[in-house]
Amino acid sequence: MPSISPSLSAAMVHAASSVVETMERILPKSEFAEQKLFDAMRYSVLGGGKRLRPFLVLNTAQIFGVDEDCALRAAAAIECLHCYSLVHDDLPAMDNSELRRGQPTVHIKFDEATAVLAGDALLTIAFEILADPRTHEDPNVRCALVATLARASGANGMIGGQMLDLIAETTALDIGAITRLQRMKTGELIACSTEMGGLLGKASPQHLAALRAYAHDLGLAFQIIDDLLDAEGTPEETGKPTGRDEKAGKATFVTILGADRARHQAKLLSEQAIQHLSVFEGRAKNLEDVARFVVDRKA
Amino acid sequence: MPSISPSLSAAMVHAASSVVETMERILPKSEFAEQKLFDAMRYSVLGGGKRLRPFLVLNTAQIFGVDEDCALRAAAAIECLHCYSLVHDDLPAMDNSELRRGQPTVHIKFDEATAVLAGDALLTIAFEILADPRTHEDPNVRCALVATLARASGANGMIGGQMLDLIAETTALDIGAITRLQRMKTGELIACSTEMGGLLGKASPQHLAALRAYAHDLGLAFQIIDDLLDAEGTPEETGKPTGRDEKAGKATFVTILGADRARHQAKLLSEQAIQHLSVFEGRAKNLEDVARFVVDRKA
Repeated sequence: MPSISPSLSAAMVHAASSVVETMERILPKSEFAEQKLFDAMRYSVLGGGKRLRPFLVLNTAQIFGVDEDCALRAAAAIECLHCYSLVHDDLPAMDNSELRRGQPTVHIKFDEATAVLAGDALLTIAFEILADPRTHEDPNVRCALVATLARASGANGMIGGQMLDLIAETTALDIGAITRLQRMKTGELIACSTEMGGLLGKASPQHLAALRAYAHDLGLAFQIIDDLLDAEGTPEETGKPTGRDEKAGKATFVTILGADRARHQAKLLSEQAIQHLSVFEGRAKNLEDVARFVVDRKA
Repeated sequence: MPSISPSLSAAMVHAASSVVETMERILPKSEFAEQKLFDAMRYSVLGGGKRLRPFLVLNTAQIFGVDEDCALRAAAAIECLHCYSLVHDDLPAMDNSELRRGQPTVHIKFDEATAVLAGDALLTIAFEILADPRTHEDPNVRCALVATLARASGANGMIGGQMLDLIAETTALDIGAITRLQRMKTGELIACSTEMGGLLGKASPQHLAALRAYAHDLGLAFQIIDDLLDAEGTPEETGKPTGRDEKAGKATFVTILGADRARHQAKLLSEQAIQHLSVFEGRAKNLEDVARFVVDRKA
């Protein structure tokens, strides 16, 4: 597996900096006492990260020739939503993590109440951004974006997956249950990223189905590598605590399949993801590259 | 001040039972392990309450002849959002309340992690409901509903108000700052309820402005009475702990104005709210009655 290609690397840096700039512009500022809330929101979203979901929105939208400013707003919305999920996931009652991307988590840097509220506010602003006419001139598209993001991140998607993840700490899950858990917890939002790019570009049902299939395989590959990094990486490499799944006695792809089979499975999924993109006849080069990157990453 | 009129009482009972039935139908069910999440969502929203916000949506929509099924969906959305805010507000890191409407709060009945996730899921489903074509056939209306709810409940609205409320525990606020806090924390969502009714009915800007003015006065009157109930009520009467503001040394309308002036102020606001409805020439009778009820309530 080759390491990250120079053109993908440049595209990822460009996507990350553009979406950070967009979020910086959109997020609220205040001179009033509640400024602490806004500071916590900014701390959460502007603190780095791979910006995988914005990258997927932007590079899918590009296939269909979507205006970049519109795509950037949708990308900012899904990144705000992703960041809220991290803030709440890190809370003492949840994963109780003190470190994220090598920095103190929001409840450590601020306090727990502020972290709850900042997460709530990031979730809320995601929908406010999508409903705004500046995101797309067609209100049907904007409603579809809101509905798609809400479904992917709600009780039958990401949040349901997080609930299952908590249950997995005390209940033995088999490989089928873990696959379902991870599809909900991580996969749905990754699939939503490509779907939003397609919706912005009024993609055909056939193209939307291909994007969904691509993203589901990509999401699963991504998660398997996450589990491998937790099992084999160090906090210095990954920027977050490692070895937590094993300590918690939690069943993951790695504990069930073993590291070698898990890595092999991730590579197969990555190749399969790329095959789904064949309908775009070479116009989805960055999406192909990112599927290779995801299984090759070290953090 | 007369006690609640029979016709208002019947209208409130009807609104409450219809919206509960709607939420019961809309909220997700599951046979899978994540069912606990869905149980917690249902426990939170189906556990009673005045259903003031749904009542305002339904009775405002009625002025404009909106289809009741559409109005009920919008009412269910804002009630889900209101309930999420209660679940998160009750968390140990926030108000640390063990009792709500005379019942254990969600984190006591379930656990803290489930309460965080159930709140997140209720917030998310509110937007999913509004973006659905069954809520209104015109996608412009649906986008306006999403945007209005997001603004009212976000960092510059309800959540910002909750942040200020936390700050008020350690910082002395004057009457201006408290009015702003309460307008954000409670008033914005109450105003949003009437605005959503107006948006569903494609109300004129003049009518929307009248509804907003009505709701802002109503919201402030509502909050003053809330403070009075906390200062003077008992847990048996109100169904929640009382005397908490004084114990926390928190400035409220009552601690600053004194009980008598606070009660007088609430009555003035209620009368003023009713005056704003004169543009509807008697077609907003239930909204008038609820403004009288709000300052007369005992819980």
